[in-house]
Amino acid sequence: MNRDGAIPRKLRLGMIGGGPGSLIGPVHRIAARLDGRFDLAAGAFSSDAARSRATGRDAFLDPARVYGDWRTMIEAEATRSEARLDAIAIVTPNHLHFAQAKACLEAGFHTICDKPLATRIEDAEALAALAGRTGLIFGLTHNYSAYPMIRHARAMVSADELGPIRLIQVEYTQGWLSGPAETLGNRQAEWRVDPARQGAGGALGDIGTHAYHLACFVAGDRAASLLADLARFGAGRALDDNVHILLKYESGARGMLWASQVAAGELNGLRLRIFGERGGLSWWQERPNQLNVTVAGEPVRRLERGDAGDARHYAARLPAGHPEGFLEAFAQLYADLAEQIAARIEGRAADPLSTLVPTADDGCEGVRFVHAAVESDRRGGVWLSRQDWPPR
Amino acid sequence: MNRDGAIPRKLRLGMIGGGPGSLIGPVHRIAARLDGRFDLAAGAFSSDAARSRATGRDAFLDPARVYGDWRTMIEAEATRSEARLDAIAIVTPNHLHFAQAKACLEAGFHTICDKPLATRIEDAEALAALAGRTGLIFGLTHNYSAYPMIRHARAMVSADELGPIRLIQVEYTQGWLSGPAETLGNRQAEWRVDPARQGAGGALGDIGTHAYHLACFVAGDRAASLLADLARFGAGRALDDNVHILLKYESGARGMLWASQVAAGELNGLRLRIFGERGGLSWWQERPNQLNVTVAGEPVRRLERGDAGDARHYAARLPAGHPEGFLEAFAQLYADLAEQIAARIEGRAADPLSTLVPTADDGCEGVRFVHAAVESDRRGGVWLSRQDWPPR
Amino acid sequence: MNRDGAIPRKLRLGMIGGGPGSLIGPVHRIAARLDGRFDLAAGAFSSDAARSRATGRDAFLDPARVYGDWRTMIEAEATRSEARLDAIAIVTPNHLHFAQAKACLEAGFHTICDKPLATRIEDAEALAALAGRTGLIFGLTHNYSAYPMIRHARAMVSADELGPIRLIQVEYTQGWLSGPAETLGNRQAEWRVDPARQGAGGALGDIGTHAYHLACFVAGDRAASLLADLARFGAGRALDDNVHILLKYESGARGMLWASQVAAGELNGLRLRIFGERGGLSWWQERPNQLNVTVAGEPVRRLERGDAGDARHYAARLPAGHPEGFLEAFAQLYADLAEQIAARIEGRAADPLSTLVPTADDGCEGVRFVHAAVESDRRGGVWLSRQDWPPR
Amino acid sequence: MNRDGAIPRKLRLGMIGGGPGSLIGPVHRIAARLDGRFDLAAGAFSSDAARSRATGRDAFLDPARVYGDWRTMIEAEATRSEARLDAIAIVTPNHLHFAQAKACLEAGFHTICDKPLATRIEDAEALAALAGRTGLIFGLTHNYSAYPMIRHARAMVSADELGPIRLIQVEYTQGWLSGPAETLGNRQAEWRVDPARQGAGGALGDIGTHAYHLACFVAGDRAASLLADLARFGAGRALDDNVHILLKYESGARGMLWASQVAAGELNGLRLRIFGERGGLSWWQERPNQLNVTVAGEPVRRLERGDAGDARHYAARLPAGHPEGFLEAFAQLYADLAEQIAARIEGRAADPLSTLVPTADDGCEGVRFVHAAVESDRRGGVWLSRQDWPPR
Repeated sequence: MNRDGAIPRKLRLGMIGGGPGSLIGPVHRIAARLDGRFDLAAGAFSSDAARSRATGRDAFLDPARVYGDWRTMIEAEATRSEARLDAIAIVTPNHLHFAQAKACLEAGFHTICDKPLATRIEDAEALAALAGRTGLIFGLTHNYSAYPMIRHARAMVSADELGPIRLIQVEYTQGWLSGPAETLGNRQAEWRVDPARQGAGGALGDIGTHAYHLACFVAGDRAASLLADLARFGAGRALDDNVHILLKYESGARGMLWASQVAAGELNGLRLRIFGERGGLSWWQERPNQLNVTVAGEPVRRLERGDAGDARHYAARLPAGHPEGFLEAFAQLYADLAEQIAARIEGRAADPLSTLVPTADDGCEGVRFVHAAVESDRRGGVWLSRQDWPPR
Repeated sequence: MNRDGAIPRKLRLGMIGGGPGSLIGPVHRIAARLDGRFDLAAGAFSSDAARSRATGRDAFLDPARVYGDWRTMIEAEATRSEARLDAIAIVTPNHLHFAQAKACLEAGFHTICDKPLATRIEDAEALAALAGRTGLIFGLTHNYSAYPMIRHARAMVSADELGPIRLIQVEYTQGWLSGPAETLGNRQAEWRVDPARQGAGGALGDIGTHAYHLACFVAGDRAASLLADLARFGAGRALDDNVHILLKYESGARGMLWASQVAAGELNGLRLRIFGERGGLSWWQERPNQLNVTVAGEPVRRLERGDAGDARHYAARLPAGHPEGFLEAFAQLYADLAEQIAARIEGRAADPLSTLVPTADDGCEGVRFVHAAVESDRRGGVWLSRQDWPPR
Repeated sequence: MNRDGAIPRKLRLGMIGGGPGSLIGPVHRIAARLDGRFDLAAGAFSSDAARSRATGRDAFLDPARVYGDWRTMIEAEATRSEARLDAIAIVTPNHLHFAQAKACLEAGFHTICDKPLATRIEDAEALAALAGRTGLIFGLTHNYSAYPMIRHARAMVSADELGPIRLIQVEYTQGWLSGPAETLGNRQAEWRVDPARQGAGGALGDIGTHAYHLACFVAGDRAASLLADLARFGAGRALDDNVHILLKYESGARGMLWASQVAAGELNGLRLRIFGERGGLSWWQERPNQLNVTVAGEPVRRLERGDAGDARHYAARLPAGHPEGFLEAFAQLYADLAEQIAARIEGRAADPLSTLVPTADDGCEGVRFVHAAVESDRRGGVWLSRQDWPPR
Repeated sequence: MNRDGAIPRKLRLGMIGGGPGSLIGPVHRIAARLDGRFDLAAGAFSSDAARSRATGRDAFLDPARVYGDWRTMIEAEATRSEARLDAIAIVTPNHLHFAQAKACLEAGFHTICDKPLATRIEDAEALAALAGRTGLIFGLTHNYSAYPMIRHARAMVSADELGPIRLIQVEYTQGWLSGPAETLGNRQAEWRVDPARQGAGGALGDIGTHAYHLACFVAGDRAASLLADLARFGAGRALDDNVHILLKYESGARGMLWASQVAAGELNGLRLRIFGERGGLSWWQERPNQLNVTVAGEPVRRLERGDAGDARHYAARLPAGHPEGFLEAFAQLYADLAEQIAARIEGRAADPLSTLVPTADDGCEGVRFVHAAVESDRRGGVWLSRQDWPPR
C-alpha cells in the first residue's frame, strides 16, 4: 500500500456507538487498526457517559476525547485545531444512523457508517445527496463484499468468465431468533425486533440487505422487480424473522433470496451462487477462503485466496492456506477507506482497487429494496417493478 | 426380509421401455435384481422389434418373451398359464405412462411406473382411481425418497425431533441443458424439451416434481398454495428450464423450491433443508449417506447410515462407512414392492417399513403440482391456493 | 459389455461360506448379480447343514444344490453334466481360504476368493503357482481397487500426470475394536482377533493389506523395504489392532501406512494420497465418487465419476452426480471376472479393461507384506528390505 | 480482558527483523496490534539501514527509534528513560534467534521469539535457563496452538473426554518446495534450504516442529522415543524436504508425524487427529473454526468456535459463524503475552487462560526433537529413546 512513499501518519478515527455490550463496535475498532492505517482517537461510545468512559479506557483513549454525547463530540472535534479527526465511524442502532451521519458530513468528516444507511427512504436519499454535495468520502460497511474471494467472484463475472448471468441465488441463514430471545434478556434481540429501532424490515433489514448487496455486488446487477413473502414465526413479532424473495434482475437474470433468523441451528450462513451460460460459482461465508467454480463439462475447481489474484486485492496479508476471516474482510473496507482518505489528503488518485467500498448510493438501494419487499408482501405477495417501488 | 420362511421363488418382472440408449431402463433392471427378489422375465423394450430383441439378449431373456410392442406383451403375458409375470415396470417417456399403466392394471399386473404418473391431470386421476379399484400394488419411482437418510429424516420430523416445522427449502440443480443439447444429438434432451412427450413442465416436470415429492415426503406435508416463476433460458425452448417456486404448506410452513437444468456445472444437486422451531436438518443427494442435524445451541451432528437406525429400513445391506448410492436407493423401492407383492401372494400383511413406496396418489399430487405451477406462472406469477389449482 | 453379441447365458456361480450372520457373503451375492452376469446356482454356505439350507432358501436356490460341506459341493458340482458351475466364490474366514481355493482350482473351477489369499506365505505361493499351472481365472476381492475414481487415479499416475511419484500416504481407519467387542458377543470380532482364524496380522491383515494393495495398485509400485510398529491396545489381544508402517517403494517413493481398528469413532476410513513432482491426488472411500487432484500452482480440481473417463471403466452404470458406492465397486470385480470367463468360454480376448482384477500374485504380495511387517515389529521396529522379508 | 480496570496504556513493542520482503514480520505486527494491547514503538527491521527505515516509515514509527542494527536498538532502548519498550519481538531467520533473544533478555526486555528458539541444543538450553533466571516473560510463537478450537481440543483431552489417549496423528503438508524454488529467486526458499541459516532440519525444523508442538500441546504429552525417515527430493538439497516420523509418547500413545514441503499442491495443511479409548477428534488448520469430535457409537459432532466455550479463550472476538483465521490465532499469543506483561506491571496474577503461550522450555523440546529426528535418520532410521537423544 502506497509502496513508493507512505503518508506520514496514521489516520485519526472517531466512533459513535460501540459501548459496553456492543457486538459491532469492537469489530469496527479491530478492523480499523488491523492494517495499521487508523488510530482510534475519540469516541462517543454510549449516551451514558460512564459507559462511554469505560469503553474509552479499555481502548486507552485520552479521556478528554471520550464523550457521553455524539453531538458534543462532533462539535468539539470539528473545531479542534490539532490532531483533528480524519473520519468518524457510526456503529449505533439503525434508527440513529441518519441523524448521526448527516451531522458528521455537515461537520466535514469523512464518514463510515454501519448498514443500513437509514431506516427511511427519504433519509437515505438525503444522505446520499449530502455525501455527493460535500464530496466527502462515505463508506457503508456491507463488509461481506470485501472478502477476497467475493471480489474475485465479481471480477470473474465482470470478465465474462461464466457467460451471461442467468441465475443469482443468495441466502443468509441464522437461527438465533428461533426462540423468543427478545424476552430472555438478549439486548441484540430486543432492538432487532423493534420496528422503532430496527426499521421496516426484520431479518429482511438486518441480513437480507447484506444478501441483496452481495448479489448485486458480484453480479454487477440490480433488481428490476421483486416479489416477497415475509413471515413472523416468533410469537408476537411485529417484524419478519424470515423472508423469501423472488427477483428478476435488470440483466434478465432470475434469482431467489432467502434471509432467515429462525433457521434453527444455523450460525451465519451467507451463501451466494451465480450461474451463467457457461459456468457457475459458489461461495459460503463460513468457509470464506474458498470459491468453487465450475465450467460446464469440467471438474469443480476450488479456488483459494492465492488463486484469486492477490493483486486484485488491496491488502494482501497472507499466502493461501493461511485462513483469513470476518475481521480481515471488515478491515479491508477500512484499509480501502484509508487509502481513499490518504489519497485525498495527499492530493493524488486513490488506488482503483480501494474504490470497491459500498457507498451511500448502495445504501439507498438497500433501503429501497427493504421497503419494496415489505410493500410486495403487504399487498399479498405480488411482483413489484422498480418503477412501482415505494418512493419513500 | 421374511426371516422365518422366505417365499419360494423370485418374483417375475416384465418391462416396457428401456431399450438401447435408455438411461433409466438399465437402472430399473439393476434395481430390480440388486436385492435378489425379482427376475426380469419379459420385456417390450422398444417399439422397434430388433432393438427390443437386442436388449432382451443382453439381459439373457428367453427370446419368446421379448416383444416389439407393449400391447402384445401385456396380452400374451396376461394369458400365460405358467411363469406368469407378477409385475410390470414402465420406463418409457412420460406421455406414454398413462396408456401403458392403465393397460397393465386392467390386465391384472402389479405395476411399477417411472414418474410422472401421467402428463395430464385427468389421466393421473383416472389411473389412481383404477389402481384403487383393482386393489393392485402400484409403485411410482420417486426414487430419492428411498434413501435411508431421507427415510430417517422423515422419521425425525414425524417424531417431532425438530419441533413444529417452519421452513422447507428444496432444490434440484442440473446443468446439462445449459447449452442447446437438444440440437446436438442428445436424445434425452430432445424429448425432455418437447411438450408433446415431456408434458407441461420442463425442468419443473422432470426434476421439480422429485423435489416437491421429497419435501412433502420428509415433512409429511403438502402445499396449501404456491407461486411460480418459470424461465426458458435456452433459445427456442417451449418448456421451462428453470423454475423458482414459493410455497405455503398446509402446516403453516413456508418454503422455496428451485429446480434448474441450466445451473451450469451442476450434476444432480438435489438438496433438502428443513427447519423446525428447535432444530434443522440438511441432506444432499450427492453425499447421500450423511444427514446433518442441528439442534439450536448444539453442534451439528453428521448422522451416518448406521446412526439412522437401520431397523427403520427394510433392506439394510452394509454397515455405515460403506457408502450406498443411487442404485441402492432405487433398489429399495423394488425390495419394498417385492415385499408388498410377496405378502399379497402369501396372504399376509406386508412389513410396515415396505409401505413407504410412493403411490398413484402421490403421482396425482405431482401432476397437479406441475399444472398449478405452470398456471401460476402463466398468470404472471401469482399465488394459487390449492382450491384454485387447475382441475385438469 | 460385449456390445456386438452377448454370450448366450448368465454365468453360474457357486459359493463357499456366507451363511447366516456373515457380513461379506451377502455382499458377494449382491455384487455377483448387480450387473446381471452371474446367477447364484449352488452353495455350501455353512458347515451347519440347516444354516446352509436357510441361506439357500433365502436366495431361492434349488435345494439339491445347497450343501452342508464345501468338499461335497466341489465334488458334486465338478461331476455335474448339466448346468455346471462356471466359478466358485470363497467367502469364509481367512484360515480356510487356502484349502478351499486349492480344491476349487484342482476341480477346474474359476475361483473368486475373498482376501487374504491365505494366512501362510507358502500356502499363498502354492496357490499362485497352482492358478498359474491350471490357467484358470483367479480373482482376489481387493474390492477398493475397483472404485472408478481409483482406477482413474491409477490411469493418471500411469500417464505421468503427476510427475515422478515421491510420496504415497495411505490409511485405513476403523473404530469398531476400540472397546472389547470380542468379549461382548460380536462374532466378527471374535474371529478377527484370533490368530488361528485371522492369521498373523490383526488390523494389519484385515485392513492394512487393503491399504497396501490400494497404494500399490494406484502407484504401480511395491515396497522395497518397510518398518512396522504394531500395537495391541485392547486388553488381552494377541494380534495388533493398530499398525504404523514406514515404506520405501521400489520407485524411490516414500510412504506411510496407518491401519487401525481402535480409531474410536471412525467408520471405514480408507484414504489414499499420492504426490508426484508436479501434483497430487487424494481419495476417501467414504466419499468415493470424488477424486481431488491438484497440480502445483493451480486450484484443486474435484473430479467426479463422469470426469474420470467412464470409457476407462468397464461397467459404466450412471452419469456423474448419481452416487455409486461400495457395492457397485465390488460388483465391478464380478463384472470384470464375468467378462474374463465369458471371453474364455467364447474363445476370444477379454476386454483389456476387465483385467485390472487383483490376482493370486497380488494375494501373495499381500501375505508377504503382512509377514514382513510382523517380523519388522518383532525385531523392535527395524527396516526390512524385500530380500530380507520372511520367506515363509 | 481486565474487565474491572484496564491498564492505563498500551504496551510498547520493539521488533528485530521483519523488513521489506519478510513474510512473518508483518504477521507479527498485525498480531501485536489486532487486540489493541501493543503499539509498535521501535524496530531494527533490517541490517540494511535504508530498508529498516522504509519499514519504519510504512509503520508510521518515529524515525529516531528505527535502527539499522539490532544491537544498537537494544542498547539505545534499554537506556531510555521515557516510553521504554516493554517487549521485543524477534522475527529474523532461525540462526539469529539465539544471540538476539539472549541480548533482549540480558537487557531486561520481555521477549517474543519466532520459532525455533535456536538452531543448536546448547543455545536453546542456555536461553531457557537465562529466561528462567531473569524471570522475564518469554513467548515462543508456535502460533497454531493458539487457535480456539485447538485450545478447546486440549481442554477436552485434559478433561478425559476421549478416554486414555492411544493415537496421535499429526501432519503438516506444503507443496511450495516441490520445484527448485531456491534457484528461482524465492528468498524464503533460499534460506530455508540453507543449513547455515535454517539449522539442522529442513521441513522438519520449519514445520515439523510446529506439528510436534501442536501434538504435544493438545495431548499434554511428549515423545518417549522416535524414529525418523528424512528425504531430500529436491535436487541438490542438503536439508530434508519431507520427513516421516514414528513416535511413542510417554503416556503410551503411538503416533505418526508427517511434515512435507514437497506435497505438490498442498498449501498449509496442518492436521491433527487424536484418538482415545472412547472417542476421537480431528482438526485442520485450513478450516480452523471447526473441530470434529466423535465418540464411538455416536454421530460426528462438528464443534464451532462458540461451542468450544469462549470462556476458555482469552480474547473472544466474534460469535461462531463469523470465521476467525491465522492472524487472530497469532494475535491470541500477543493478547496473552500482553496480559502476562500487564499483570507483571500491575503486580497481580495473570489470567490463567493467558498462560498457554509456548515458552522457552517448549522451544528447547522442539530443538531437541529436531536433532533427535536427524540423528535417528542419520543412523539409518532407528528408534531413539529420549535418554539417547543427542545432548547437543
